[in-house]
Amino acid sequence: MNSQKMQNKVALIIGAGDATGGAIAKRFAQGGYITCMTRRNADKLQALVEEIEQQGGKAYAFGSDARKEEQVLQLIEEIESSIGEIDVMVFNIGANVPCSILEETARKYFKIWEMACFGAFLVGREVAKRMVPRQRGTIIFTGATAGLRGSAYFAAFAGAKHALRALAQSMARELGPQNIHVAHVVVDGAIDTEFIETTFPEIYAKKSQDGILNPEHIAENYWHLAQQPRDAWTHELDLRPWMEKW
Amino acid sequence: MNSQKMQNKVALIIGAGDATGGAIAKRFAQGGYITCMTRRNADKLQALVEEIEQQGGKAYAFGSDARKEEQVLQLIEEIESSIGEIDVMVFNIGANVPCSILEETARKYFKIWEMACFGAFLVGREVAKRMVPRQRGTIIFTGATAGLRGSAYFAAFAGAKHALRALAQSMARELGPQNIHVAHVVVDGAIDTEFIETTFPEIYAKKSQDGILNPEHIAENYWHLAQQPRDAWTHELDLRPWMEKW
Amino acid sequence: MNSQKMQNKVALIIGAGDATGGAIAKRFAQGGYITCMTRRNADKLQALVEEIEQQGGKAYAFGSDARKEEQVLQLIEEIESSIGEIDVMVFNIGANVPCSILEETARKYFKIWEMACFGAFLVGREVAKRMVPRQRGTIIFTGATAGLRGSAYFAAFAGAKHALRALAQSMARELGPQNIHVAHVVVDGAIDTEFIETTFPEIYAKKSQDGILNPEHIAENYWHLAQQPRDAWTHELDLRPWMEKW
Amino acid sequence: MNSQKMQNKVALIIGAGDATGGAIAKRFAQGGYITCMTRRNADKLQALVEEIEQQGGKAYAFGSDARKEEQVLQLIEEIESSIGEIDVMVFNIGANVPCSILEETARKYFKIWEMACFGAFLVGREVAKRMVPRQRGTIIFTGATAGLRGSAYFAAFAGAKHALRALAQSMARELGPQNIHVAHVVVDGAIDTEFIETTFPEIYAKKSQDGILNPEHIAENYWHLAQQPRDAWTHELDLRPWMEKW
Repeated sequence: MNSQKMQNKVALIIGAGDATGGAIAKRFAQGGYITCMTRRNADKLQALVEEIEQQGGKAYAFGSDARKEEQVLQLIEEIESSIGEIDVMVFNIGANVPCSILEETARKYFKIWEMACFGAFLVGREVAKRMVPRQRGTIIFTGATAGLRGSAYFAAFAGAKHALRALAQSMARELGPQNIHVAHVVVDGAIDTEFIETTFPEIYAKKSQDGILNPEHIAENYWHLAQQPRDAWTHELDLRPWMEKW
Repeated sequence: MNSQKMQNKVALIIGAGDATGGAIAKRFAQGGYITCMTRRNADKLQALVEEIEQQGGKAYAFGSDARKEEQVLQLIEEIESSIGEIDVMVFNIGANVPCSILEETARKYFKIWEMACFGAFLVGREVAKRMVPRQRGTIIFTGATAGLRGSAYFAAFAGAKHALRALAQSMARELGPQNIHVAHVVVDGAIDTEFIETTFPEIYAKKSQDGILNPEHIAENYWHLAQQPRDAWTHELDLRPWMEKW
Repeated sequence: MNSQKMQNKVALIIGAGDATGGAIAKRFAQGGYITCMTRRNADKLQALVEEIEQQGGKAYAFGSDARKEEQVLQLIEEIESSIGEIDVMVFNIGANVPCSILEETARKYFKIWEMACFGAFLVGREVAKRMVPRQRGTIIFTGATAGLRGSAYFAAFAGAKHALRALAQSMARELGPQNIHVAHVVVDGAIDTEFIETTFPEIYAKKSQDGILNPEHIAENYWHLAQQPRDAWTHELDLRPWMEKW
Repeated sequence: MNSQKMQNKVALIIGAGDATGGAIAKRFAQGGYITCMTRRNADKLQALVEEIEQQGGKAYAFGSDARKEEQVLQLIEEIESSIGEIDVMVFNIGANVPCSILEETARKYFKIWEMACFGAFLVGREVAKRMVPRQRGTIIFTGATAGLRGSAYFAAFAGAKHALRALAQSMARELGPQNIHVAHVVVDGAIDTEFIETTFPEIYAKKSQDGILNPEHIAENYWHLAQQPRDAWTHELDLRPWMEKW
């Protein structure tokens, strides 16, 4: 490994397909990290890669399914061997599809867990294996309020996000003393995304009064977490619009 | 359906292979319920069935794997069509195999979730489908302290038990207003079982001073929950030996 | 101390002025305890004393203000020296007076804490001093949902009930290993009291469908807690009507 | 009110007598706020005032006891009428004196609550009264792990810090929709202070490996909170050294 590559710090964003992941990638690129981004279809990340590079950053896109162990192993190996050491990993996958418990299918219950939690376990474990021998690194999981309380029609999503939070806590308690910073961000509110704009226009209307989360502002908090000196690490913080009921 | 069967109240104990499930089955049998019990191998339940019947109770053993949807569907259908209406369901499966996150395998991480959480979802949903039209029933999930906080080496178990707790809360919030009582019991401490006796003799030694949980005393609390009038339902209670650190 | 008195077990109910405290007193009297009850004006407890005695129980009423240290010391001393050893203490005082934080007075903020928490500290400490040398006893605090989360207009009540819950947890962790059972009951919903009937008739109307808590059913849970064998103690349970939103 | 004063933004630090309060004051001064600081004896703040002014900041010291309503009223009035509008208030008072519940005095139990919680209520309410009509402001309370769980020998401190957290939550839920950002910081670990150095030298020894919190790093997080755009506010975050057990 040549000395130049040793200086490259990689921030790996798993799930950069939405506005949040993209904004986080841009923030870390702007902060000097080489940014590696994944989503299932890498082609859809090209615009983001170009945007980062036009701003003077360095970015790589990968098509990778976080639920598939072989793909995760290969992804991490490829980044570490040809791009640089992963110093920051952000796991940003997970989607809610509300449903009565009476009608929830086994397939959907499993898939929601697989995406939001099992993928986080796979990627979290793999990057931890690389970080622990180096005694440095930051791992951030994107959580949700459903990770703190179950609700009617949220059995699947709440289960997945609770399990994700348990993963984050367990990893923080095991890996903190090995100088790996593990954090969990509770996003509580709608985010300014195309999905919200299209599907919930009445929620999107709150944007004019800052009533939905701006992805860049979310990203700023991830950046803040990754910069905390190790005598004062945050494990969990919540993010919520001022007018949100909670 | 003849009128006699209508009067039969069934308590279904999923996972009666250990001391706790067995004690719960005996307590409900003693309280007048027809007791249906499952574990993967029904043969191993025969002694328990005989014990209950010798004490004047009625008991049925089923070999059934709670993680397999078809088996769960068939189990519930068989009980409801040939034995009686399921009035109480207790889900009592789950095992911890502590492991560093760095060495946890995808297979084990998945299996621990599948047993403690996915099975609970399948059985919980299926009995709820029967109970909701009748507007009555009680569903109790056996949880653990790991359902409330993650710990080093507990990522898999904490994830599964967090997800189980989320399931219990989500079901309680959806089904309570339909007169279905959903409860979650946090067992915090070692239980007086063969497993503890054999594997952790130093913990088992605390039995002489009531330092491990007696399965019959656990069972008494499940009974208490199932008897609560609906104006004063408990969703969650913890159980812990007096000398346990927590 | 003569041998007969040694056999007398006293249950002390602090705050028996409302339906809940009264029902708890009756339940413990029915279970064989000598029941000592307090409220600020003892005269108002006479009907309750008579009711208990007509049912064959033994009851004593005390006028005592739980917020006044001298009165608490004197009460405990009087009971222990002339009636019997306090085996169970239930603290059941606390009232909410919702108010915007902008208009809350220092006097009311203080009084709500003084009643629900400071009194609990004084009585809890005094009975613990008696119980610890005997290595036996049960202490139960009546909590509320406001003990678990703060809400708009609930700053004073939530503060007092949070502090009460912290007291219960701290005492349980210190005194459990000394064989003193300390429990905290989260009552989440309106109780069937004159106050609710008069002040919130629209809530009281839910009584016809079991939508408010029956004090006798609350009391049954306190009794259950006090009877738990020490290998399986509950520290916290919630009680809530089936149709309550939470 | 002249236009110049309108531009002055005041950050008020209640309890600037320790390293943390001082560091917070310096951070906000450096960020352009006029910094007003209090402790019971203003003289002891002179060195801090001078340090801030030498760095080009503006600072004022006040001798003020946060537990005394008249003093709080007068303090806020004086700042608002002669210095500027309070835009940020940090409440940073509270001290633990561990003690068995059996030996805790009523006086100390009360004083610990009075300092950590009652003072926070008084100052919080008074600044909220000023902020709400202006529809802007940030209020940050310094909490502790004892605000989340009670522990043996921590009954008084846990009670006070639980009540403080309830205050923060209640205020956040009431005032957030009025554009007032209320946050609660859970400091979990020893801070680099003279007190720790003198009293717990074995803990202080961890400083060499970043095992105790650096007040400047704590301050940086308060600054971060105060700068969050209102579409992405954090209500609670924890801060803990990497090697801290939790």
